[in-house]
Amino acid sequence: MPRTRSKLFPTPDDAETAFYEAFERADLAAMMAVWAESDEIVCIHPQGPRLAGFEAVRESWAQIFSGGSQLRVRATEARSYDGPTLAVHNVVELVAPPGENAPVTPVFATNVYELTEGGWRMVVHHATPAPESPRPAEEEPSSQAHTLH
Amino acid sequence: MPRTRSKLFPTPDDAETAFYEAFERADLAAMMAVWAESDEIVCIHPQGPRLAGFEAVRESWAQIFSGGSQLRVRATEARSYDGPTLAVHNVVELVAPPGENAPVTPVFATNVYELTEGGWRMVVHHATPAPESPRPAEEEPSSQAHTLH
Repeated sequence: MPRTRSKLFPTPDDAETAFYEAFERADLAAMMAVWAESDEIVCIHPQGPRLAGFEAVRESWAQIFSGGSQLRVRATEARSYDGPTLAVHNVVELVAPPGENAPVTPVFATNVYELTEGGWRMVVHHATPAPESPRPAEEEPSSQAHTLH
Repeated sequence: MPRTRSKLFPTPDDAETAFYEAFERADLAAMMAVWAESDEIVCIHPQGPRLAGFEAVRESWAQIFSGGSQLRVRATEARSYDGPTLAVHNVVELVAPPGENAPVTPVFATNVYELTEGGWRMVVHHATPAPESPRPAEEEPSSQAHTLH
């Protein structure tokens, strides 16, 4: 099914900005305009299954946005790895419901963008709840025991 | 601190194979030979914090391997995104303790490799426990409600 693309993202940063703006606005069309139209895309929401392919990813965002609660989402502490056709951003998302004093939930996300004929598009979004606070400093490994790596 | 590298990984697949072999053997030196020697590397173990930089990542693997329980780890269902200097593999790790009938724990991992002067090296390992079974088919989005995407 051909789709009309109204936007092109000339850089991975442009695609990432559009991703988080669509997320905050709960705008499904804008969200899916960020993703590559491919069976190869992968989306893992926090504690969710591994969704593969455009339709499965679209349905998951439709479900999330249907809840009606618009969230504030800010991507911070980015570590970026950039190639000519592929870019990876590992970020800490600060996710909060609307309101001045709403609690902020940190989420770790790895976002992968690929240069396609239609500009840079997201191909992987892998998101993980951050461990319960107090959050350890990045420089100090957790003292938690990990039974499975 | 200069380190002597005994191995070069000519492809991202070679680096990934070495990563999982080192993991299974609980071989810290071999594990850290896979990683780029950089402050920019990021490792998120399942339910763990976001560790950044070579020393923090090294300490985490030392801690994991110090437990003495060698695990079998098989990377399956790979989705690969390849560029000339950057490669991303999203895989389902099947992790099990030794033994014929040991339970297998699926872990979702996003592995990022970068072409360095020393060949391909890992720069991101982001691992997440898969949801409790029954694991939904990849083509069908979960019916779980996600309050935070």
